[in-house]
Amino acid sequence: MTARDLIKNLSALPDGPVTVAGWVDTVRDQKKVQFVVLRDESGAVQLVNPRTTDADGAVVADEPATTISGLSQGTFVVATGELKHDERVKLGGIEIKLASLVVETASIPEAPIAADSGIDKRMDWRFLDLREPKHNLIFRIQTTFEHAMREYWIDNDFIEIHTPKLMASASESRAELFEVGYFETKAYLAQSPQFFKQMAQSAGFGKIFEVGPAFRADPSFTSRHATEFTSVDSEVSWIDSHEDVMKLHEDLIVAGFTAVKAKHGEQIKELFGIDIVVPSTPFPRIPLAEAKRIVAERGYEVPRHDDDMDPEGERQISAYVKEVFDHEFVFLTDYASSIRPFYHMRHADDATLTNSYDLIFNGVEISTGAQREHRIEVLEAQAREKGLDPEELEFYLDFFRYGVPPHGGFGMGLARVLMLMLHLSNLRETTYLFRGPTRLLP
Amino acid sequence: MTARDLIKNLSALPDGPVTVAGWVDTVRDQKKVQFVVLRDESGAVQLVNPRTTDADGAVVADEPATTISGLSQGTFVVATGELKHDERVKLGGIEIKLASLVVETASIPEAPIAADSGIDKRMDWRFLDLREPKHNLIFRIQTTFEHAMREYWIDNDFIEIHTPKLMASASESRAELFEVGYFETKAYLAQSPQFFKQMAQSAGFGKIFEVGPAFRADPSFTSRHATEFTSVDSEVSWIDSHEDVMKLHEDLIVAGFTAVKAKHGEQIKELFGIDIVVPSTPFPRIPLAEAKRIVAERGYEVPRHDDDMDPEGERQISAYVKEVFDHEFVFLTDYASSIRPFYHMRHADDATLTNSYDLIFNGVEISTGAQREHRIEVLEAQAREKGLDPEELEFYLDFFRYGVPPHGGFGMGLARVLMLMLHLSNLRETTYLFRGPTRLLP
Repeated sequence: MTARDLIKNLSALPDGPVTVAGWVDTVRDQKKVQFVVLRDESGAVQLVNPRTTDADGAVVADEPATTISGLSQGTFVVATGELKHDERVKLGGIEIKLASLVVETASIPEAPIAADSGIDKRMDWRFLDLREPKHNLIFRIQTTFEHAMREYWIDNDFIEIHTPKLMASASESRAELFEVGYFETKAYLAQSPQFFKQMAQSAGFGKIFEVGPAFRADPSFTSRHATEFTSVDSEVSWIDSHEDVMKLHEDLIVAGFTAVKAKHGEQIKELFGIDIVVPSTPFPRIPLAEAKRIVAERGYEVPRHDDDMDPEGERQISAYVKEVFDHEFVFLTDYASSIRPFYHMRHADDATLTNSYDLIFNGVEISTGAQREHRIEVLEAQAREKGLDPEELEFYLDFFRYGVPPHGGFGMGLARVLMLMLHLSNLRETTYLFRGPTRLLP
Repeated sequence: MTARDLIKNLSALPDGPVTVAGWVDTVRDQKKVQFVVLRDESGAVQLVNPRTTDADGAVVADEPATTISGLSQGTFVVATGELKHDERVKLGGIEIKLASLVVETASIPEAPIAADSGIDKRMDWRFLDLREPKHNLIFRIQTTFEHAMREYWIDNDFIEIHTPKLMASASESRAELFEVGYFETKAYLAQSPQFFKQMAQSAGFGKIFEVGPAFRADPSFTSRHATEFTSVDSEVSWIDSHEDVMKLHEDLIVAGFTAVKAKHGEQIKELFGIDIVVPSTPFPRIPLAEAKRIVAERGYEVPRHDDDMDPEGERQISAYVKEVFDHEFVFLTDYASSIRPFYHMRHADDATLTNSYDLIFNGVEISTGAQREHRIEVLEAQAREKGLDPEELEFYLDFFRYGVPPHGGFGMGLARVLMLMLHLSNLRETTYLFRGPTRLLP
């Protein structure tokens, strides 16, 4: 490896020789002194080079002065010099007096995007967009959030599974299905790991999790839909109802937020102006029917013919929960069977309602969870009622014919959680490389 | 949650009332006493029910006797009774004298597979196949192995990325590409995250990892190929050569094996008859040309017209390394440019060789790693030389036009590592749900 000091570690070092490596953020090429702000994955530091003058006081074209004069933004360099602590330097109170500067790879001089470029343009040049410290931080936060959930799962003896994304049939509605040419036949991209995480329950795995891609051929262009997204899934056996799933779910969220606040809280405050709040448990739980009444009382009638909530309704109920419970999360529970998939278990005493929930965070749905119907006769009847092709489902229904424990779980969109955590308005910002109906590049 | 005692915890409990839940493994329905072996995700325990007799000594058809007589293998039940420690009981020295037995979901009486079923049949009924403790253990090992690697990555400040699996072009050769209908156009499934993990280097992420699916439309039916597999990828900036990648790679393997041995070593010995060996570092490194000479000296001439090794050659060099270095791993290095992708960096003093390696474990290749070519002119020339369409690659080549540090990394097949760790002969055993040219189900 290139021997180098990470910029974030410099301030703790004594004055003396250091080597840093990274890319050029800005250059101020003045007559008597040159300044370069150099950035690496950990931070930014000012490099300074007082120009040499000859006996007549004229500037000499020596090194590294000439190299600095030719630097473009984005050029990757290795710089050595003397670290100096100096409180007057705005950028961290340190600077490096350059001894040498070696260009590793030069950048084309004209950057195709600027900080104020539109989001679509920025997505075209995502690799440059991600050099922005604020954007880089999003993926550090994601890393920490995921790892904290994984530690919870591991500590609680969950098994990690990797379910296939190539399927012979739809895993959810056939409406948003990508078709793949598959040798002599065709396959479909998994819209969720639903069937396969349930299979793990029949297989006696007990408790599982998966973090992986899911695909929806959804033609919409909203700020919160993508054709490919990272789905966080967990499923557990021997639950009594969806209440057990919600308990697991809120524990995971709390684990994730606690770790993010501890590791990145200060930087999030600095770059996003947000105080990360670790949510208290239990999260508020409101049956959907009651939520609709509350929202109506606030003057908003959900303009839908089915029993579902709509995005504005979700914002309204979130606002209510924030006011009344001072909470950013709310579980809306007991959705109508008519708007839930066939595999959601229905209430024992009212088949029009399901043992299910949506988790709303800062006004937007981030997850759906449920107890699954594990009784094969009931499951088959519900599938028929929803008009599904029993033949396509045979492989799935088999999971329930050889014994299966009661179980349930949830799927959660990772980019949505990050988007709402950081008060961003578009999940393009929290997706490494966004995929939408008209975007397959880069 | 159903209040229950995990079976693995029973032996540490005192005699007294317990509740267990799981599935029926075997039933011995004898005249005077009934035995049920019950299994959950953590182990197996014997339930015993002495039958009631009436005044004449005739057996009474009471509960739970009648229920037990009707039990099929696989049926999920909740059982309560008195735990008794008794050294004479083979299964763990404990048994549970039944008080009640409640059937949660009954299994169809005839199990479609048995322990000696062929692998294809077992894959048809994978959810039953995975109830086998040995098969379940594989995925616990996988969980531990992955988590240990992730802890290494997190401790060393790597960023986790989730790269898109939907692409506008091929990521590797166009030969094994799955095509997806994508709205008005078409997309391809990522054969590897290659381009996007390199993008992270240009984006200044420094060090990244990803564990996710990769897709190859490979029509072969070998024991070590799949059309979808879980790829373990890592990529780092500021390397000097592929040596730095190998160092990272062996550290990760050691972290994984250490954790697996500590957590599952005893059980692996018991169920697989294998002593997990944590490999010593550095792993042996042998340039490919030398490996071919060694193999030839052992009497095996690789029957290939190109410069590559073949599977038998890999077995031979592994046998040599085992004999000479007592090591299960070997890095074969410096593959010929002719058989490596255009993005591998070539030797500064010999363009016919690359800064690359394959990692061989117990005779089979599990990974390819390399330093990447980061100089745009060289990269473009190498792409042209390989006959690639520069237009399709434009988005990728752009990553190198705005500055990029030297970098490298590897991709590793997770199921292969597990297969070879456990001395299994087929990666269908170590894949949760295998996908091959004729298998899309379950």
